[in-house]
Amino acid sequence: MADRFVRRIPEPTVVRLPVYQRALLALSTGGVSTVSSAELAAAAGVNAAKVRKDLSHLGTYGTPGTGYDVNFLLGQVRRELGLDREWQVVIVGMGSLGHALARSQRFSTQNFRAIALFDIDPVRIGEEVEGLPVRHVSELSAVLAGNSRSIGVIACPASSAQEVCDRLVDAGVGAILNFAPAVLTVTQSVQLRQVDFSVELQVLAFYVVHPEAAVGTEDAFSSGL
Amino acid sequence: MADRFVRRIPEPTVVRLPVYQRALLALSTGGVSTVSSAELAAAAGVNAAKVRKDLSHLGTYGTPGTGYDVNFLLGQVRRELGLDREWQVVIVGMGSLGHALARSQRFSTQNFRAIALFDIDPVRIGEEVEGLPVRHVSELSAVLAGNSRSIGVIACPASSAQEVCDRLVDAGVGAILNFAPAVLTVTQSVQLRQVDFSVELQVLAFYVVHPEAAVGTEDAFSSGL
Repeated sequence: MADRFVRRIPEPTVVRLPVYQRALLALSTGGVSTVSSAELAAAAGVNAAKVRKDLSHLGTYGTPGTGYDVNFLLGQVRRELGLDREWQVVIVGMGSLGHALARSQRFSTQNFRAIALFDIDPVRIGEEVEGLPVRHVSELSAVLAGNSRSIGVIACPASSAQEVCDRLVDAGVGAILNFAPAVLTVTQSVQLRQVDFSVELQVLAFYVVHPEAAVGTEDAFSSGL
Repeated sequence: MADRFVRRIPEPTVVRLPVYQRALLALSTGGVSTVSSAELAAAAGVNAAKVRKDLSHLGTYGTPGTGYDVNFLLGQVRRELGLDREWQVVIVGMGSLGHALARSQRFSTQNFRAIALFDIDPVRIGEEVEGLPVRHVSELSAVLAGNSRSIGVIACPASSAQEVCDRLVDAGVGAILNFAPAVLTVTQSVQLRQVDFSVELQVLAFYVVHPEAAVGTEDAFSSGL
């Protein structure tokens, strides 16, 4: 099995795989059977050479003159992204961001399913959002039951983010997506990513002030704290 | 003026500057006057060598044995990030994410100020969120008046994201932060970044499935698309 080899797919490639996946899904749904690297590049907002290089990391090379088989490539990308199984998502912190995330279809599609919502504020416990009751964080372990195919989403204030993070790690989540503006520490076996709106605004401000620095950045998509 | 030189600060460094800025602001507020690269590294979740390298791009080198002057460095990082002036933020798309963003203090601090909210749905026009009335997108140009120190935030569905993007560009925004799961095209003079929750979940799933690929990724912060 190719998956047993230690392959090092570069992170920028990993981050583009979901974009290819979305483009391929739209093509497949539309009944398109083959796609050129140029077409896929246009749909993903990158150049064709980058598409070919990215996909070569998966061991996939299109047929010259024909391109890629859409459904085969879609299956391959989805398998690579772990989308051939279901992922359970829990959201901790049911303020307005937590509500927005719970209501976002993006947290309940593509094999991700929000299964539980948590807060620490007694006022919020028991409230129902999108059919799910808000529970107290002390129930985290019982709900997750050590399922590593689970992702904890931190949407609480920065001041309690590390405590929530520790609880998620203890409950056995495989990964954490942190929206709190705080630098968190996890054990190495737990994957951690951070989305910080304030950082995004500041990075944009930087590039408006220094437009010369933006020339040559690879694509419209941001690349990283 | 050093600013006149065309310096190419690498994007990963740019994305860490807001994190250093936040750490320095906390130190300054706490009355701390000097900081070592190791301390700053711990606060930012990276290693000390990276801090020194990042700051060297700003032409800043700490004093051996003493470190960096907190307030001087803070001023320098803030100036570099364009935080020595005010940035106007407009949010387009007042669904639950738009509401959450409008309510987030992070869109109204650090010299960013949400000045107007927009939607296209007549039902939402006139609603007041955080003291701001929701206006119709047709008023975008009049409100922004070509101010390039402005950032448009797209929080509408993917299907209307490019149209909203075009309106923001026409209205003269300097930058766009896109939360819609769509690849957008802008003229080169407008800075664009994208935050896609679904992509973040998929990237996390990838690393849970392929933990060997995560070894050596630089730090906990995500690298966007």
